[in-house]
Amino acid sequence: MNLINFPSKHLENAVEELSKLPGVGKKTALRLALHLLKQPQEDVERFGRSVIEMRTQTQYCSLCHNISDSETCSICASPRRDHSLVCVVESVRDVMSIENTGSFSGVYHVLGGIISPMEGVGPSDLKIDSLVNKIASGTVKEIILALSTTMEGETTNFYIFRKIRNHSVTVTTIARGIGFGDELEYTDEVTLSRSIKNRILFDAGTNTL
Amino acid sequence: MNLINFPSKHLENAVEELSKLPGVGKKTALRLALHLLKQPQEDVERFGRSVIEMRTQTQYCSLCHNISDSETCSICASPRRDHSLVCVVESVRDVMSIENTGSFSGVYHVLGGIISPMEGVGPSDLKIDSLVNKIASGTVKEIILALSTTMEGETTNFYIFRKIRNHSVTVTTIARGIGFGDELEYTDEVTLSRSIKNRILFDAGTNTL
Repeated sequence: MNLINFPSKHLENAVEELSKLPGVGKKTALRLALHLLKQPQEDVERFGRSVIEMRTQTQYCSLCHNISDSETCSICASPRRDHSLVCVVESVRDVMSIENTGSFSGVYHVLGGIISPMEGVGPSDLKIDSLVNKIASGTVKEIILALSTTMEGETTNFYIFRKIRNHSVTVTTIARGIGFGDELEYTDEVTLSRSIKNRILFDAGTNTL
Repeated sequence: MNLINFPSKHLENAVEELSKLPGVGKKTALRLALHLLKQPQEDVERFGRSVIEMRTQTQYCSLCHNISDSETCSICASPRRDHSLVCVVESVRDVMSIENTGSFSGVYHVLGGIISPMEGVGPSDLKIDSLVNKIASGTVKEIILALSTTMEGETTNFYIFRKIRNHSVTVTTIARGIGFGDELEYTDEVTLSRSIKNRILFDAGTNTL
């Protein structure tokens, strides 16, 4: 079925917008739109507003680049966290995954991705400079590289390591309890928790592929 | 990964709302939310507004119950359509499907579903009364029942037929048969048996491609 002949311009607009979501085609978008049409008006208004408010009311934490409702996120603002221990992750999802284990007392640094020439993501697209500056300031004793155990993750680990090796900071990676090619967000809590506990010194010689 | 420890209340709200969409779980909702977070603010505002506007600015056509931007939909308002020929369908999607064929010149009547005791949908939940009133007014010469060829569809067909059999209106159903491109050996027995029973004269003019 080709999606033409919309009986309503407003329906067509909504389908057009919904189909821009990742993994949502035109037919799925129409199904979602017709579902929303059947919901009470206040529910649909709350739905639309929640998305707009998320985009307009949140910001990236000025210290760790995690999503936050204030200039500094609750983790970075907490006096109970060890600010000399920084866990470097790709995304907000990874912060949530590690926080779920309840076994990490340090703070985070969210890169916003990993180096991936295939997808056109270079070092300058990531929050690597601010990580290097953070380390240069001398307040960080250890960074834990907790990126995906993929080619791109290893490349990013190595790139960061090269950038900071002249500073007096211990560089560790989470233990290889995680299968090669696995992604952090799909790892069970025990494995993830152990891989943080058993983190090992980063060795540019043996850790490269 | 359990979805707790949201770094932002606004993000949590948006994930909560997105996960109410049919077929969207919490993890998918988080993926959608983080995707939206990366989009330009005006794009996300347009997204949210489009959904709200669809819900608040559209209405059901007072004549056929199709979605419409005005009190009467463009099909019912068109003088080029045959208003004495009414095609009864379940949903807005079916109207769009039939309109896409470009071969129907009548108008529609959207029931809003079919009778399904399993899902708690009874005749009173559907726009059957207004269909009966439309027929009772005497302006309709023929109604085409174009519902799903399921038990529920057949039940609904029969229910409608009983309600209107005392009125002078021709009641037809769309032809049940073998789809274009289908193979006989993969066709179920009911369909095959009906397609033999309801065989039609071969017309070299209309049956060729």
